[in-house]
Amino acid sequence: MKRVVIVGGGFGGLNAAKVLGSRPGVDVTLIDRKNHHLFQPLLYQVATAGLSPADIAAPIRGLLAGHRNVRVLLGEVTKIDLAGRTVAVSAERFPYDYLVLACGAQHAYFGHEEWEEFAPGLKTLEQATEIRRRVLSAFEEAELERDPQRQQKFLTFVVIGGGATGVELAGAIGEMSRYTLARDFRTIDPTMSRVILIEAGPRILSAFAEKLSADATRYLEELGVQVRLSCMVTRIDADGIEAGGETTPAATVLWGAGVKASGIGAMLGSELDRQGRVIVQPDLSLPGRPEVFVIGDQAHCRDEHGEPLPGLAPVALQQGRLCARNILRDQRGEPRKSFSYLDKGHMATIGRSRAIGEIRRVRFSGFIAWLAWLFVHIYFLAGFKNRFFVILHWGWSYLTFGRGARLITSREWRSYPGSTGGDS
Amino acid sequence: MKRVVIVGGGFGGLNAAKVLGSRPGVDVTLIDRKNHHLFQPLLYQVATAGLSPADIAAPIRGLLAGHRNVRVLLGEVTKIDLAGRTVAVSAERFPYDYLVLACGAQHAYFGHEEWEEFAPGLKTLEQATEIRRRVLSAFEEAELERDPQRQQKFLTFVVIGGGATGVELAGAIGEMSRYTLARDFRTIDPTMSRVILIEAGPRILSAFAEKLSADATRYLEELGVQVRLSCMVTRIDADGIEAGGETTPAATVLWGAGVKASGIGAMLGSELDRQGRVIVQPDLSLPGRPEVFVIGDQAHCRDEHGEPLPGLAPVALQQGRLCARNILRDQRGEPRKSFSYLDKGHMATIGRSRAIGEIRRVRFSGFIAWLAWLFVHIYFLAGFKNRFFVILHWGWSYLTFGRGARLITSREWRSYPGSTGGDS
Repeated sequence: MKRVVIVGGGFGGLNAAKVLGSRPGVDVTLIDRKNHHLFQPLLYQVATAGLSPADIAAPIRGLLAGHRNVRVLLGEVTKIDLAGRTVAVSAERFPYDYLVLACGAQHAYFGHEEWEEFAPGLKTLEQATEIRRRVLSAFEEAELERDPQRQQKFLTFVVIGGGATGVELAGAIGEMSRYTLARDFRTIDPTMSRVILIEAGPRILSAFAEKLSADATRYLEELGVQVRLSCMVTRIDADGIEAGGETTPAATVLWGAGVKASGIGAMLGSELDRQGRVIVQPDLSLPGRPEVFVIGDQAHCRDEHGEPLPGLAPVALQQGRLCARNILRDQRGEPRKSFSYLDKGHMATIGRSRAIGEIRRVRFSGFIAWLAWLFVHIYFLAGFKNRFFVILHWGWSYLTFGRGARLITSREWRSYPGSTGGDS
Repeated sequence: MKRVVIVGGGFGGLNAAKVLGSRPGVDVTLIDRKNHHLFQPLLYQVATAGLSPADIAAPIRGLLAGHRNVRVLLGEVTKIDLAGRTVAVSAERFPYDYLVLACGAQHAYFGHEEWEEFAPGLKTLEQATEIRRRVLSAFEEAELERDPQRQQKFLTFVVIGGGATGVELAGAIGEMSRYTLARDFRTIDPTMSRVILIEAGPRILSAFAEKLSADATRYLEELGVQVRLSCMVTRIDADGIEAGGETTPAATVLWGAGVKASGIGAMLGSELDRQGRVIVQPDLSLPGRPEVFVIGDQAHCRDEHGEPLPGLAPVALQQGRLCARNILRDQRGEPRKSFSYLDKGHMATIGRSRAIGEIRRVRFSGFIAWLAWLFVHIYFLAGFKNRFFVILHWGWSYLTFGRGARLITSREWRSYPGSTGGDS
């Protein structure tokens, strides 16, 4: 019986466990810090009150309940002993014959870690509900505020980073203020709010063709989002931001500009790239350690042109399956296979009815792309129940322009930095 | 133009605002600490992972968006000046011609405020997700624990108070461990968990007829819940509880034993009852202050037999409507009406298919009562969307025995007292 320890229940780890589940000869332990698998591509919908946390997350235990040889543990890995082949969770040690590391990535602030407090990133459910709280609270503060300058500050939303996360956040906030909240307030007019998307490079969504970037920029502008390109952020604090020499007072700043791999990679003593990703062999194993695999956002793996693969859900999912199959090939005495990414295309959505997409050389944008995006995302949502309810929630929101999950839940709704609330 | 200030967006305040909304001659400001109206009767479903927060809560702004003369403010009332007729929210003062106080109640620990940390009550969404986290984390801890005694402690759930909240919590936890989680774990068997309901009086649900209390006790026992009657709790701490001279180690203790009215009542300098409720006139106004109304859980109002009315949603709802209509009667120069509670009956549910109910002198229990409970609660849920989605979520859970919202969301999933986890 081979003991396989998988660290991380994201797309990579979960799919590795599913392939190994119920196979004879393997005994799987999946360790995660969270009890739920998260459908990260839709996290921005939670942050902007379109969906509830439970719509895009499912308990890992429930997803793997049918695989009797898989054990799920909630815990944080504190040490990896490669020579002794054990993983430590607090005082407990788990011996392994195979180790799969699929610990994902988190936001990086390029040496400005002090910015995180003022500009949270979007990688976890907790961050999503925190962003939701900040965005909704800013409208509430503006409604209470009498000073026009401070009111404008509360109605200014800055999103840093023109990748998919930043574009989707900016589009959703623009849409929310234009449509959902338009009738809710009496003192302020939410449609007067400013949403600014800042990108350091010359265009947004640079992973897509130039024509599609231009389409996405136009869609954002139609929702009232101001797109600032080739603009570097030099300061973020409670007052707002400074970018391209210009100061913008803003109560809400969100970060979608950079990622770095999980710190667990550094425990391996192996070579890392600049983003902290572990450089892996073509079969996804650690150089010199064929029994250790690193996959997903945590791994630096090159495609056939020698380019590192992007940190996308389909890459992690396919890598999870491949490394599990390589473990099974070992058992059967067959040679391992190298990873080859089957690119089914990539997409990004802007607001309630626009998207852009690229499938190999085919490019599409607008409403048709949005429909395609909708179906692809619903199809890949883990667990049939979630898929079913997300369709309904979206159908409802689409027809009514509503956002049902507009909840501010926290002891202190005013506890974000930049608040000038007087109740402190 | 008469300025009406309503404090509190629960059943009382919301319905007062709806009656006054869009009426000529009144200008309404509704102030609440939270941005959402909460359907409290279903809060235990969030605490036990059956529903998501957004299913039972709706933004107050959204509910009142169509009433153009109603303004909603998110804020906490810090002072009430009865002589000057103003309400203060932080530094801001709101003058009123009429004041409606509908601030609700919170849990009371009978002078043992130190118990709150170990035994949270269930009045807010935050408390519900905290209880959900504690219950789900206890199963996770038990799965990791090797010492059988400590494992049993994690699998012991104590609910204090045999009123509707306590009975509904205990029933749902019993059902969750029997059905929902049964296949999810490998080391522990969730069906071996102990759920104990402790009631100081001689029977549970004492607001109902004796026969129905006995039925409810039997339904709880069928779900594996141990019901301890005439049992006083004398100690609650990180180790568990002491009740009736017996010590029970338990990691999860929940409180549903007593309530006290919001502290805002004490600002009035008027007579309060032992639970801190303001004693009001038959027209719901404050003695000597006809322009001030106190309603709902915050008010002590007697029925035709001289008995104080219970803290139930229908009482608050009807009082909200009556006090608003009395304000309108003042405008028309008509005499005010006294409050008379139209009792449409009361119900409590136990697990997935049992309930008890009493409508005037008609008593019913079992599956039929549960169906009735279901329809009544769905019918009264605020907002059509919520109603629609709750039906679907419940239908789904009923057919699959699932609980979709099994999320542990918190930075520190082990941060509850009584944890013996080693990662501190």
